[in-house]
Amino acid sequence: VALDRRQALVLEPVRRFLRRQAYPHLLNLLAKVRPGDFGAIYDGLTEREQISLFKVLAVQNPRLGSRFVVDLPHEGSIDLIRRLDHEASARLLEHCAENDAAFILSGLSADESQPILELMHPEEKATVEKILIYPEETAGRLMTPDVFSVHEDLTAGEAIAALQSKRDIEIAFYLYVVDQRNHLVGVLSLRELLTHPPLQPVREFMSTDLITVRTDTDQEEVARIAAKYDLLATPVVDDQGRLVGVVTIDDVMDVLREEATEDIMRLAGTSEEERIEPSITKSARTRAPWLLATFGGGFIASIVINGFSSTLSGRLIGLAAFIPIILGMGGSAGTQSAIVMIRGLATGRVKEGEFFAAFLRESGVAASLGLMFGSLLVGGAYTALLIRGQATGSDAIREALVIGLSLAISMMLATVIGAALPLGLHKLGIDPAVSATPFVTTSMDVLGTLIFFSLASLLILG
Amino acid sequence: VALDRRQALVLEPVRRFLRRQAYPHLLNLLAKVRPGDFGAIYDGLTEREQISLFKVLAVQNPRLGSRFVVDLPHEGSIDLIRRLDHEASARLLEHCAENDAAFILSGLSADESQPILELMHPEEKATVEKILIYPEETAGRLMTPDVFSVHEDLTAGEAIAALQSKRDIEIAFYLYVVDQRNHLVGVLSLRELLTHPPLQPVREFMSTDLITVRTDTDQEEVARIAAKYDLLATPVVDDQGRLVGVVTIDDVMDVLREEATEDIMRLAGTSEEERIEPSITKSARTRAPWLLATFGGGFIASIVINGFSSTLSGRLIGLAAFIPIILGMGGSAGTQSAIVMIRGLATGRVKEGEFFAAFLRESGVAASLGLMFGSLLVGGAYTALLIRGQATGSDAIREALVIGLSLAISMMLATVIGAALPLGLHKLGIDPAVSATPFVTTSMDVLGTLIFFSLASLLILG
Repeated sequence: VALDRRQALVLEPVRRFLRRQAYPHLLNLLAKVRPGDFGAIYDGLTEREQISLFKVLAVQNPRLGSRFVVDLPHEGSIDLIRRLDHEASARLLEHCAENDAAFILSGLSADESQPILELMHPEEKATVEKILIYPEETAGRLMTPDVFSVHEDLTAGEAIAALQSKRDIEIAFYLYVVDQRNHLVGVLSLRELLTHPPLQPVREFMSTDLITVRTDTDQEEVARIAAKYDLLATPVVDDQGRLVGVVTIDDVMDVLREEATEDIMRLAGTSEEERIEPSITKSARTRAPWLLATFGGGFIASIVINGFSSTLSGRLIGLAAFIPIILGMGGSAGTQSAIVMIRGLATGRVKEGEFFAAFLRESGVAASLGLMFGSLLVGGAYTALLIRGQATGSDAIREALVIGLSLAISMMLATVIGAALPLGLHKLGIDPAVSATPFVTTSMDVLGTLIFFSLASLLILG
Repeated sequence: VALDRRQALVLEPVRRFLRRQAYPHLLNLLAKVRPGDFGAIYDGLTEREQISLFKVLAVQNPRLGSRFVVDLPHEGSIDLIRRLDHEASARLLEHCAENDAAFILSGLSADESQPILELMHPEEKATVEKILIYPEETAGRLMTPDVFSVHEDLTAGEAIAALQSKRDIEIAFYLYVVDQRNHLVGVLSLRELLTHPPLQPVREFMSTDLITVRTDTDQEEVARIAAKYDLLATPVVDDQGRLVGVVTIDDVMDVLREEATEDIMRLAGTSEEERIEPSITKSARTRAPWLLATFGGGFIASIVINGFSSTLSGRLIGLAAFIPIILGMGGSAGTQSAIVMIRGLATGRVKEGEFFAAFLRESGVAASLGLMFGSLLVGGAYTALLIRGQATGSDAIREALVIGLSLAISMMLATVIGAALPLGLHKLGIDPAVSATPFVTTSMDVLGTLIFFSLASLLILG
């Protein structure tokens, strides 16, 4: 995305103020920039300017600086922290939300992050270290630990007063109500707090129908629950039911978006990794495995073709030209079927009890597409054989039938494999997005060739 | 997703109460079901039970019923409304949020929706009709029109009182501040309202740095803005800057998820449509066009192969067996490259000014992968030719080189086409997800064949 007008108006003054070391002007200007707009401005600076900008921010306004650090893409913020000195990094990170600081530090090696942690404010350091104990991609890592809660004995008026005295809560959508030992017992919205008499105890109007996740809940599960119940904030409890944090909707949206990207990348046999460190060798390495699978399938197909054609060469030379179309169509039809299933499973549209129904439906689609394109190819091949004079009369019909039938069977088989494989992998608890489509295209290279030559041997030479 | 324990505990009693017409019990039970849990219970009922359940709800508790209708998948809710009588449909829809009612009605034909609209409460009917005037997939369709706003002259205390008197606002994250003629002039959070003295005018502490969208802004653009600035609610203004509605985060999440699914489906040459009316013929129809493209490419390839092999048949018979691997690898490498670009463009990681850099990077990946697999195939083909006795000495080396070089050139060309095409389509304002991957695989079928035979003619026969 190019700089829009608002961003473009800021970039040049930022550079000028940096050059002239006019820091008060610089900070005044930056205070008016929304975090969401900062990324484009940051990208417009040279590397040297980026570093000096954040050095100034770390000393003069680390809170503002931390908002910008957090809004950079994950790999961008890691890269920035690597290039800054430890002192500046510590100042910026200690002003981030603790979960954001932990997320950035987790992208560094222990050797890189330890000296920064040591320089951070002891309280922030302790919280960040506590978050880093939870396994990656769990609610524990995703949550904000400073969650605002009130005791169940408080009245509406007392709860409002408590809220007013706490100035540094990041966002407060809901008020959580806890008992003596910090067990989560209820929840109420700010609006409910305002619309009840000040002397009424919160316990009387709080909702006790709680949806919670645990610190070890997988982050995709957290996102699924938050999306399902439209929760702006999802409370996180420990194994004793004590309130330890809250996952907010903005982090949920990041997880959902990340997940969609991951699925799309995997479908093409490449990976999420490609986005994080996009060096050419790294990209080549992540893409090579699927290509190797395609290579293997193709090589086996070449052995099969060669094996058959050396014995049958004379009669089948005209037919072999149709092998690529048979393999290509099988791969395409199988991929379509696999992707419909994979996305159906991911969005919950294909449900556990309905696997067989979904499979039957897909088989119906397979049969119609196979018959349709098979017939089309019979006609096409027959015409081609006649025009070229490679076969005539009943020979031409028989050969055209072999070609069309091979296509139809390949497509049906591919569609059925494409549908069944994701369902099977899902049953086994394996994410079908990882390996379904490469497997389908590769196996169809081999199976399609075998189908073609088996039919040819049977119907023409048999 | 199977019924979880909570849902399973409800399903049987619901069926029993329906059978016995024990409606008070039924309604008591349903009042405790969360909308997010209802879908699984609904799916467990027979069609007849589904209809009678909603007939009871429409008469006895249409507000509760509307919450369940809205939580069904879009096509499910349309299907339900079609099966209910007009009177029951009108009762349920008039209790939905107006944007939800409009969304459901927009899935029906005018003949189906008009009689329902006529039976709705005149006020709701008018609002829904106003929403339906906005084009589909715009902020106007997505927004909730009843947005809570206060006049700029009010004090904090008066604003709180105004909020307390309004009981039917769906969600209120932010308070919008408007002038005499309803122009949006500021925004403040409920929390800010609570933490300022009751006598202070809202004008003095509201934020005037407003992010707004217009009624005709595309819904994907709305979602992008809301995600970028982490907005829980995005105000919608008309062409005069007057506040007309608000888009809430839950609707934004639906748009983002929908968008990801759409992209994934399109990558496989099938479509969003498949999910909405999943009949077999419909599915076959949506998938056929890409398959037809693959078919066309394959058929042209077969003509090319035939044309060459009839003149060169003797010497090239061993080599032609490697055509499928060359075409398959070209298609796979090109698809990987296209998908990395398409997703990069969709998530904003590949930026407008950096197209050439992204393209160069991809060319580097292309060169390394092409050289890698090309060398691998030279070795493989050489060994195969020697083992089979199809060629010896310098002939075998030359033929293996032709095969490996064809693979390398095909893969490089495919990667470059795969990278350039989405960038080009994006420049032209066409969504690259729609047509990039089918085009890449299809064109590689033809180009790969041509490359192979040109090299063979040149290096072996020339």
